[in-house]
Amino acid sequence: MASADDIRAIVSKYLDAVAGGTSADVAALYAEDATLEDPVGTEPKVGREAIQAFYAALDAVDNTTELITVRVSGNTAAFHFRVVTVAGDKTITIEPIDVMTFDDQARITSMRAIWSTDDMTVA
Amino acid sequence: MASADDIRAIVSKYLDAVAGGTSADVAALYAEDATLEDPVGTEPKVGREAIQAFYAALDAVDNTTELITVRVSGNTAAFHFRVVTVAGDKTITIEPIDVMTFDDQARITSMRAIWSTDDMTVA
Repeated sequence: MASADDIRAIVSKYLDAVAGGTSADVAALYAEDATLEDPVGTEPKVGREAIQAFYAALDAVDNTTELITVRVSGNTAAFHFRVVTVAGDKTITIEPIDVMTFDDQARITSMRAIWSTDDMTVA
Repeated sequence: MASADDIRAIVSKYLDAVAGGTSADVAALYAEDATLEDPVGTEPKVGREAIQAFYAALDAVDNTTELITVRVSGNTAAFHFRVVTVAGDKTITIEPIDVMTFDDQARITSMRAIWSTDDMTVA
């Protein structure tokens, strides 16, 4: 099993990639057959290709991210974070709690993002 | 599906029951065939009877709880909270992130608690 420190490091890398990386950088943190459900209740994306396509919007906008808190237990992390997206003249702030599972190599095997428009502000 | 408001209300009731209720009060918020994994990575408890037994320690200690933040999406809630337990001359503080799913009647169908001893202080 990946260690808690390894898992925390990947959470940090993930937030860095969402902020400053490309969709390919983010997708590279996922296992080949990973699943992504964002937000929870929508149809999961399956596989790294579909996951990279999900993050493609990243390539067109400026994001900053900030980790608020992270918990790790077994192969699972839950973390509360802030992502601020500047798109044209809009600034969108979302503060989800994401839940991720990891394989033995600390690749993300699943991601579930728990948030709704209640947790989003547009300025 | 239970509404986000219903789900937030049950999260609040859950924390109230952990603080001031009995193990039976807490277990009553769960569906009959619910599962509980606390912390994640341990063997899940299955069914309300096993779940009530898990909370039996509540009946012997003084707890206070505080919701730090909650997110709801679809049938799922994730919430960061603090539980302070006074047991004899020890005060134990834990700040987990719990993930719960809910049925149409807003009964808890699964609970997974993500925390480790890193998130616990004993004073």
